[in-house]
Amino acid sequence: MKISALLFFLVTLIATSHANPIRLVTDGAPIHLLRPKSGAAGAKVPQLNCLSWRLAVETYNMRNWNLVPESCEKYVGHYMEGKQYRDDCDAVADIAIKYAKNLTLAGDGKEIWVFDIDETSLSNAPYYARSDVQFGAVPYNDTKFNAWVAEGEAPAIPAVLRLYKTLLSLGIKPVFLSGTKAVYRQIRISNLKKVGYKNWEKLILKGESDHGSAVVYKSNKRTELVEAGYRIVGNIGDQWSDIIGSNVGDRTFKVPDPMYFIG
Amino acid sequence: MKISALLFFLVTLIATSHANPIRLVTDGAPIHLLRPKSGAAGAKVPQLNCLSWRLAVETYNMRNWNLVPESCEKYVGHYMEGKQYRDDCDAVADIAIKYAKNLTLAGDGKEIWVFDIDETSLSNAPYYARSDVQFGAVPYNDTKFNAWVAEGEAPAIPAVLRLYKTLLSLGIKPVFLSGTKAVYRQIRISNLKKVGYKNWEKLILKGESDHGSAVVYKSNKRTELVEAGYRIVGNIGDQWSDIIGSNVGDRTFKVPDPMYFIG
Repeated sequence: MKISALLFFLVTLIATSHANPIRLVTDGAPIHLLRPKSGAAGAKVPQLNCLSWRLAVETYNMRNWNLVPESCEKYVGHYMEGKQYRDDCDAVADIAIKYAKNLTLAGDGKEIWVFDIDETSLSNAPYYARSDVQFGAVPYNDTKFNAWVAEGEAPAIPAVLRLYKTLLSLGIKPVFLSGTKAVYRQIRISNLKKVGYKNWEKLILKGESDHGSAVVYKSNKRTELVEAGYRIVGNIGDQWSDIIGSNVGDRTFKVPDPMYFIG
Repeated sequence: MKISALLFFLVTLIATSHANPIRLVTDGAPIHLLRPKSGAAGAKVPQLNCLSWRLAVETYNMRNWNLVPESCEKYVGHYMEGKQYRDDCDAVADIAIKYAKNLTLAGDGKEIWVFDIDETSLSNAPYYARSDVQFGAVPYNDTKFNAWVAEGEAPAIPAVLRLYKTLLSLGIKPVFLSGTKAVYRQIRISNLKKVGYKNWEKLILKGESDHGSAVVYKSNKRTELVEAGYRIVGNIGDQWSDIIGSNVGDRTFKVPDPMYFIG
């Protein structure tokens, strides 16, 4: 009786402890789980490699894309909520901090670092994880997204907050430059302060008179900063439109974002 | 007896079928295999995430690096010789081909596509796999690398060869632009032809009078092409120095290269 109880325990352990169990009993499930989706006569059914897709997005090979491929929705979700995204962000922050610490500042307080907000300083992952948003695999909904912004509850991206605090301690002044509409100014300020971004030289949001693509808008605003005597020593964003165009800064940094593209 | 034999079988199955087994017997091995390398009092020992490092390289966040981190040598080797590198290259080629097929050509035969050679059109992976090269984890040796080039045995990167053939069929003319010294002209021509690159508009190698960084050299050569009336509709390389600078072309494409950096 005791042996049968132990047997039952061991069988249960085998059945529950494997992520992809080797089936002990043929119950109709496919045997070759490691070779899914092969066509007839060994012909491969082409499958999107989601890591390749993500690399194409991050390297700016893939441009003007509208949606996360349906077959990569789960991949993107796991990535965004897992260790790899945090590690990838930390790697960017480490490189940026190393660069910033090696700068020789002029001492006139004119060195600034441009921070994008969404998916750079603040994370919208809690919104994107919603079942009606699906990490970017369903079309963008302006009304829903703005309602989320209006909540003012976006968490900080820890790696970027770490960079921000280091820059402040070095005497490099943060400037937030975002495509968020200026109507959300107070809620964004309260959100930023709540999660640890407490000081900045300027917070630039998109006004009624600001038109054009993200590249044009952000280039114009950076040009105004340079014309006002600031020196952009660094510039960090999740979109390529944050870090291309004119007056991009002495050094640019791309944080990952496989959820959406802004051109 | 039969029950004890079954028990033995089950225990053996548990012990051998888990990649990271939960040890049933404390044999001196660490129990929490999922938390390796933690320091005293739970303090983390920082470990380089090689995928994060590779992403930093590919996105141009990491610049002017000299060596593959020692702890990532095996990772880079597995990547370069495995399916992911091929898939990543295929993803770039797919995007480039889609872009090229959507172009409207002027019909004057002046549209060109700039191809870098090493790690773009041809692969030096057989060289980099050598035990004295270690996929870029040991310092670059000019003499050894040139001896490898002189063999003229570099294979094509299949995805880029596919792009090349598609462009030829569309009427877009390939131009090879490489930092290889012009003294290797004949061997490079023979190597390219041997593996399937059989026609091109120009093959530009680095002459005695070409000086400056890769960015400057390639910018100068592209400017000469534009001044000669060519229109660079596409430009593909494994280094960021291939695709930044002046006259980079209407669209640029970055193929992966985690083995070395040329600035």
